[in-house]
Amino acid sequence: MACSFVRMEDKIKTFSKFGDTKKGGITRFSLSEEALAARAEFVRRMEAIGAAVVTDDMANIYATIPGTEDLPAIYSGSHMDSVRQGGNYDGILGVISAMEAAETIVSEKIPHKHPITVVVWTNEEGARFEPAMMSSGVICGKFDKASMLASVAKDIPGYTFGEALEASGYKGEEKNRITPEKCAALVELHIEQGPVLEAENIDIGIVEGVCGMINYEFTLSGQAGHAGTTPMPYRRDALYAAAKTIQYIHDELDKLDKKLVYTTGKISCHPNIHTIIPDEVKFTLDARHQDTDVIKQVLAVIESLPSVVEKCDLTYEKAWTRNTVAFTPELVNLVEKSAKEYGYTNRRIYSGPGHDAQFLIDIVPATMIFVPSIGGHSHCEIEYTPVESCLKGANVLLQTLLYIDEK
Amino acid sequence: MACSFVRMEDKIKTFSKFGDTKKGGITRFSLSEEALAARAEFVRRMEAIGAAVVTDDMANIYATIPGTEDLPAIYSGSHMDSVRQGGNYDGILGVISAMEAAETIVSEKIPHKHPITVVVWTNEEGARFEPAMMSSGVICGKFDKASMLASVAKDIPGYTFGEALEASGYKGEEKNRITPEKCAALVELHIEQGPVLEAENIDIGIVEGVCGMINYEFTLSGQAGHAGTTPMPYRRDALYAAAKTIQYIHDELDKLDKKLVYTTGKISCHPNIHTIIPDEVKFTLDARHQDTDVIKQVLAVIESLPSVVEKCDLTYEKAWTRNTVAFTPELVNLVEKSAKEYGYTNRRIYSGPGHDAQFLIDIVPATMIFVPSIGGHSHCEIEYTPVESCLKGANVLLQTLLYIDEK
Repeated sequence: MACSFVRMEDKIKTFSKFGDTKKGGITRFSLSEEALAARAEFVRRMEAIGAAVVTDDMANIYATIPGTEDLPAIYSGSHMDSVRQGGNYDGILGVISAMEAAETIVSEKIPHKHPITVVVWTNEEGARFEPAMMSSGVICGKFDKASMLASVAKDIPGYTFGEALEASGYKGEEKNRITPEKCAALVELHIEQGPVLEAENIDIGIVEGVCGMINYEFTLSGQAGHAGTTPMPYRRDALYAAAKTIQYIHDELDKLDKKLVYTTGKISCHPNIHTIIPDEVKFTLDARHQDTDVIKQVLAVIESLPSVVEKCDLTYEKAWTRNTVAFTPELVNLVEKSAKEYGYTNRRIYSGPGHDAQFLIDIVPATMIFVPSIGGHSHCEIEYTPVESCLKGANVLLQTLLYIDEK
Repeated sequence: MACSFVRMEDKIKTFSKFGDTKKGGITRFSLSEEALAARAEFVRRMEAIGAAVVTDDMANIYATIPGTEDLPAIYSGSHMDSVRQGGNYDGILGVISAMEAAETIVSEKIPHKHPITVVVWTNEEGARFEPAMMSSGVICGKFDKASMLASVAKDIPGYTFGEALEASGYKGEEKNRITPEKCAALVELHIEQGPVLEAENIDIGIVEGVCGMINYEFTLSGQAGHAGTTPMPYRRDALYAAAKTIQYIHDELDKLDKKLVYTTGKISCHPNIHTIIPDEVKFTLDARHQDTDVIKQVLAVIESLPSVVEKCDLTYEKAWTRNTVAFTPELVNLVEKSAKEYGYTNRRIYSGPGHDAQFLIDIVPATMIFVPSIGGHSHCEIEYTPVESCLKGANVLLQTLLYIDEK
């Protein structure tokens, strides 16, 4: 049993046209004209293989091919929307792989007891309408629906998600939502969005869960002064204090578990003039680890910071946190079994980024499959996974769905 | 012989109205409506005490009260323009003090052989039309006049300094410029713009010269990546590399002479998103010292920097440099003698910021007098010097002009 290289390649190429930036990537905001064209192509292709297509009240699409018994469906899919100038694999590859698995099952007449539902989640990226993972969040009770409908487009003043939803033609009924009763299991394939699998020459990442994370913002408050007139002993230089604090955080966090990742990605400096001593500098710290205890150790490092650094006041506040999410162990084992079945190199891995599946696990059994991202690039136009790697992912997905069906 | 507290206070209050921000400071760009109102007030007051007023081709104003002999004039003054939301003392206090010294000489009928010329330099700040010290620079051959006339306003697209000059009504003849033949000496009073005098409880700064300075921009180039997916050993984090470089620069420069001042005032980070590892960070280094050898040691530290920091490429380029300028020693001594005459506490000091006098010293004997800036604040609305301090400065200026006259 194997998916088709030719069909996978065709699907990747076809969906890359919707929102093509002509620079190797796509801009395909959720429910945009480009996204609606991609949805139409999805519906057309799924109906062509005999799927029944419905949408729910958040415009999530469910395309179901019937099974031989009256059982809950096995779900697989991901999202079709992208960030601005994103790539051709993030999200869409999970949809394409599920389509390809379903198409293989249909064309090869592979017997299956459970219905197979290919699902497209609306607005995973939150690139136009915040927050990310909006629709899976509403379904799983993470977000209030009315607030989500009122979310205003970042790039179109006053334009709400609710308006985009009404205009899309994809708004369906709430009764069509995925529920625990309807769903036997959910498997989402995704690109890794990191460099580990490629660097270790691994075909398949068996995703055990999504890392817990914390995000803090630090502020150093000093005193502005003229660069040419203020002797060094009089200074309260907020940027120098920030550099020292960043160094301290690195030194301390480097002592913790080697799987910990942490990043200062954003810094702002006031007044940010070359001849003025900075009086306020803010910077972020994002830290992620699968083990809650390690996250607690990170918090302890933050709490150990002095309140005054180089005569500047240091304060911080929590921007957000996310607890570690563990996927369903039986499903994780089936993904591993499937990878071994094909002889693909594989390893267990935790996801750093968030995915719809991390919300769905609250209501249905769920897991994920990762394929390598070349160079670790994602959310950019050079994001790339070779068709060969995509095909291996689709094969593992296909086999996992069939193992789940057998149970 | 002493200037008048009441008149000084009146002048400070009056000129603070021209461009009043209503928040304690002024915005008075050179040749703006507000600056022209201040000029009119200056001309009115100078003519009222019998001065003959002319302007040169860069709209510098020279208001001269005659002496008893046919001698070159003794010049004193500064500028009337400000930065956006600047204070009521930077520049204008030098004009006010020179006005007050002249008014005291006239009202007290103090005999003087040399003419006394109160001068207003056009566009010292360069806040609307770059560069700073534009008109003194043209007169002293530092800047090309045609290029200066073509300088476009930062805040008004297409509007040139030449147009502002023509429209001002203050454009005069080139023959009216200050020249070595016309000028016996030039003394500019200014606020310190730094905290030293106030901190040391000193009334008068005897300015020996203007510090040499260098300004460099550094670039760290790394590799962007997702904060949640890129293990620490794979990272080339440009911001962490920048923090380390800033720390290194501090550690090395702190070993040099204690009078050295250096500042990283500006930093930019790309893409500056909290979940993305930064791939490019740029920051500035401004360093100033009166001794050229110390500046050379700073350059040696810069040249000692490694080309790779934390796997990121480090490059740098010179933005600009300025050599140390020494004022005329005889005039510096006369300022000191004058301060002692009044029993004012005083110390010799080098200026960090640039001033018109640093260009004028190329063509005429020149020096400066500093008065304290409370809190070291300048180029902001809370810039402040008490009238008492301003009066002490004006008295020292008056006495210095009279000592020069005696010679």
